[in-house]
Order: sequence, then C-alpha cells, then structure tokens
Amino acid sequence: MTDTKFGVVGIGNAIVDIIARCDEAFLSNHGMEKGFMRLISADQADELYGDVGTAIEQSGGSAANTCAGIASFGGKCAFIGRVAGDQFGNVFAHDIRAIGVAYDTPSLDAGLPTARCLVLVTPDGERTMNTFLGASTQLGASDMDGDRITSAQVTYLEGYLFDKDEAKAAFHEAAKLARTAGRKVALTLSDAFCVDRHRNDFLSFVRGGVDILFANESEITSLYQMNSFDDAAGAVRAECEIAVLTRSEAGAVIISGNDTILVPAEPVEKVADATGAGDLYAAGFLYGLTQDRSLEECGKLGALAASEIISHIGARPEVSLKELAQQNGLLS
Amino acid sequence: MTDTKFGVVGIGNAIVDIIARCDEAFLSNHGMEKGFMRLISADQADELYGDVGTAIEQSGGSAANTCAGIASFGGKCAFIGRVAGDQFGNVFAHDIRAIGVAYDTPSLDAGLPTARCLVLVTPDGERTMNTFLGASTQLGASDMDGDRITSAQVTYLEGYLFDKDEAKAAFHEAAKLARTAGRKVALTLSDAFCVDRHRNDFLSFVRGGVDILFANESEITSLYQMNSFDDAAGAVRAECEIAVLTRSEAGAVIISGNDTILVPAEPVEKVADATGAGDLYAAGFLYGLTQDRSLEECGKLGALAASEIISHIGARPEVSLKELAQQNGLLS
Repeated sequence: MTDTKFGVVGIGNAIVDIIARCDEAFLSNHGMEKGFMRLISADQADELYGDVGTAIEQSGGSAANTCAGIASFGGKCAFIGRVAGDQFGNVFAHDIRAIGVAYDTPSLDAGLPTARCLVLVTPDGERTMNTFLGASTQLGASDMDGDRITSAQVTYLEGYLFDKDEAKAAFHEAAKLARTAGRKVALTLSDAFCVDRHRNDFLSFVRGGVDILFANESEITSLYQMNSFDDAAGAVRAECEIAVLTRSEAGAVIISGNDTILVPAEPVEKVADATGAGDLYAAGFLYGLTQDRSLEECGKLGALAASEIISHIGARPEVSLKELAQQNGLLS
Repeated sequence: MTDTKFGVVGIGNAIVDIIARCDEAFLSNHGMEKGFMRLISADQADELYGDVGTAIEQSGGSAANTCAGIASFGGKCAFIGRVAGDQFGNVFAHDIRAIGVAYDTPSLDAGLPTARCLVLVTPDGERTMNTFLGASTQLGASDMDGDRITSAQVTYLEGYLFDKDEAKAAFHEAAKLARTAGRKVALTLSDAFCVDRHRNDFLSFVRGGVDILFANESEITSLYQMNSFDDAAGAVRAECEIAVLTRSEAGAVIISGNDTILVPAEPVEKVADATGAGDLYAAGFLYGLTQDRSLEECGKLGALAASEIISHIGARPEVSLKELAQQNGLLS
C-alpha cells in the first residue's frame, strides 16, 4: 500500500470493561443470551453491577482493542472515539496512548459518563456483554478527523456504532473521507444481534464500498439471512475485496476474489476469557495487510493475536505481540 | 472468643489499585524504593500515570484486602474507610460488598477523589506502590462506628492510617472503643518507611494495648531500631499478646508469651505479583483466630491465603479461600 502516516485508524466506542466471573445460571436468571452483547441503560447497569461479584476494570471497546493490538505488533495506529472527563475516561485514554496508539478525541465535558461494559465470563471462557454506551454515543460526523483518516491506509469501523444514529452518521462520514482519499475501508460486523437490528443499513453500507469485512459465523449468516456458512461466504465473495470470516476454534476462512484460504486457529491450553478474540484477530490481520503480507500470513498473525488474548482475562494484550510473532517465526 | 456479630472490623484506606508492569530501571529512574510504598500528590499521580504502560484497575487497600480475604474464608467481617462518590468509589464499594463484607461508610460528597495506588510490578513479582490518598484521608474519629467496633471480636487497624493526623485520631478512637468493650485490637505496621515516619507514635500505640501485631522483617526491625530480626522479635514478645512476623518465602514466626511457632511459607510455582501478601496472611490468621484455631493453624491459613494472592495479579482473592482451605485440609 502507499506510504502513509498510519497503517490503521480505528473508529469505535470508547469503553472500560468491568470483568467478573459468573455461572451459566446467572446469565439465564438475568435474561442474557450467552456469548452476545446487549445494550443497557445507566439504571440497568447499576442494578446488574450490584448483582455481580468482585470484578476488575480494564480498557476495552472493540475497535479500540484492535488498535491496541496493532500497536502491540509495532504498527502505527490511531483511534477516534469519545470518553467523558471522568476516572474511567482517564483510564481509557491512558491505556490506549500507553500502548502507542495516537488518540486525541476531546472528552465530553458534562452529561454522560464514560461507557462501560459489564463483561461476564462463564467457566467455559465465553463472555457475555452488557454495555452502557454513555459518552461513547456523543460521537458525530464533525469528530471524524479528516487529516487522520486520509493519512491512514485503512479506516476500520466497528459495527456497534450503528446502534446510535449520530455515530452511524460519523461512520458514513469516515468511510466517505477514506474512499475519496483512495484509502481502504474495513468493517467488523461486531455482533449477530447488532447485525439483526440494522441489517439493511449494514447491507447497503457493505455494498457501498467496504473493502475488508470481518465477521464471525453467526454475523455473516445473519447479514445475508442464510442458514449455511458456505452460502453466506459465497454471497460476501461478490461484495467485498477481502472477507475475513472467523469460526472460533475451527479457524478462519479468508475470501478474496476466487481465492479461499483456510487458516487454522492457534491452539491454546485453556480459554480463560474469549473477550476480544475477534478484535485481536482483526488486529493481526490488519497489521499484516498494512505490511504487505500475504493473506495467509495476515490470517496467521490474526490467529496468533487471538490466541494470546483468550489465554487470559481481558481484551488487551499482556505481552508484546511483536515479540510473540517473532518467537513464532511470523515476523523477523 | 465471645459470641459477636462480626469476627473482624477492619479500618483503613479505601483505595483502588492501578496495576502496571515495569522493569527495574523504571523504578530507579522515577526515584522509587523497590518493594515499599510512597505517598504522592494528585499531580504526581497524574504525571507518573502518564509514564506507566497499560494497566488494570482493581479494588485494594491494605485492611480492605484483609477484610475481603476473611470474607472469602467465610468469616463475618466489616470495613470502615472512605471513598468519594466517583467511579473508583463505586468500584471499591461494589467489590468489598460483593465479596460479603459489611461496608457503609458514607462516601465523600465533594472535594477529593477516591484514593488510588499505582502499583508497579517488576518481573520478579515484587510490587512498589505510589499512593494518592485522596478521599481516604477524610476519615475521622466521628466515623468510628461504635456499634460495629464493639460487635466485632477484633478491630484491625492498618498502619498506613498514621500518615494523616485525622485518620490517626480515628485510629485511636477505634482502639479505645474496642478496648472498652473488651475486644481485641490488632495492628499491621504496613511499611518500614511508614514506621520510620511515625516510630514514636507506633511504639506508644503498641505499648498502649495492641493485642495482635502484624509486621514483616523490615517493619519490626524498623519499629525497634534493631539490626537483628531475633532482637526485634524478643522486644515485641514483651509488648504484645501475639506478634505475627512474616518473612516472605522464609515463612512466618508467631510469638506469644513463651511460645515461638515457625510456620513455613506455602510454596508457589511463580510469584506473579506480591501485592497483598501481608494483607492476606493477616486475613487467614485472623479468620483462624476468630474461629478459635491454634496459633499454628492460624499461621497455616495465613500462609495459604498469601500463596493464593501472590500467584496472580492483584490483591483480592480469585478463588474462594474457604474452598482452597478445604482442599488443603485446613478447614472441614
């Protein structure tokens, strides 16, 4: 790709995760669909927090996790998303900058607090998320930093932004800026229920020019309302330059033109917490892509990053992904 | 001991830990003494935070960690300490209640934010702490809940409170209430530099009637200004009913009257983070004591709790200490 200041600019919700363990019964007693994300109000967040056990707090947010992962590989990356000027906002801004991501979206002065996500981890390592979007929703088209977007090879957007109209407008603005500058637009579908809530908008956005699409099995079949993964994979082949379809421990399928590349998952001893698996897969993939690696190598970098993140609690890398990739012979 | 509502009421600073990894050079470059605690201002905290890498946040505070540990053993426990009505205050209050500790100190309405401690963990697992006391300092004699103190077998005080005059006054008030009601007073010396800052106050407090004293090697030798551990152990024998002297991997020495009981440390595969080792030793010991266990059994419960806490990041137990003690044959 052309020489640019940033490999990737990520745009998404700026969230602090509150991570607690729970059993399966807790999820069903509280009306949650295991493995998915639901939006909750401030009152619901307070009530649910009162019911969960002791927790830890750590920066999160889907695209923000991806940016942190790219920076951990050594990639140049920027993030756009809004926090409030409160303690969680400080935590979010500190962590994303500390890992080396350029971040300067002004924080919200008053009103909504920084977004938080109650992440409930069941004994099998699966995560179920309850998000209060707070200040994250106050991100509009005027926040889309044209300089930053046009100076990045790839503009990466998280589907969760579709849940708020203002953020959706920002989303379209960012994509327009990127396309006009001849940059690539990447999108992650984020969550099958999110796709279900906004299917037509997603389809029209994808058809309007998404170059690189990330989705897991339930998201891609939801997008095309097809029962079979293979059918959905066939549908996306005609619409995107590259589609990266992840299937958890079954690995990923990368579709591009006539090519179909299968990349096995990197084995892990035990899944401690699946939070961030998709985000970090995207991090490895996009880092590889901006370094002009082959699609198979991009997939392997994604699989490696995902394996690191699911081996511990939290969605931010605990080791240098660059060093990990070097140890695994994927980077020199 | 007599039948009471609570086994232990802990009184201390109400702190949220911000835990980050760093190398040895980072400590010396920032003028820190490895393994100790220093107090910093709000500005210093902000500046230092800007220099550290990505972090996680978790409830902390010395006596609060001890209370959390006692509750995890199944003990009835209460905590007195002050947070502000901010996000970190919510985190602290949530976590201590979620583990089963009674906590109802009103939060500070305005002014100082909730206390935070930048905990820096070096590759050897040792922790070095930088504390901004914030709202924690706004704890006075009038906050000492007489009902709660007199209804607990043991009132447990952390030495760190000596760093602020108002909290020190609260400390004396709590001890007076406990003694008058015929309850036991326990004290942890907290930190050798803290002892050094307030040696005469500590000595007069210990001589005024501390029944159970917790200290590590550097703290007890600092208290008595003796070079030898054995000499300091001899000095404390004359002054306290029970002294619990911890020596990291060399185990603990429990001194009571003419008895000297050596309790080996519980081996761990790798020390991930030493934060909370002393706090959790005290938790196991005090839980045993309030259950009328022998001093040796109390020491073994302390060693087990400490081994759990140093095997992972953070100073709050990740498993039920009750179940862990059952698996190790220490509880039925």
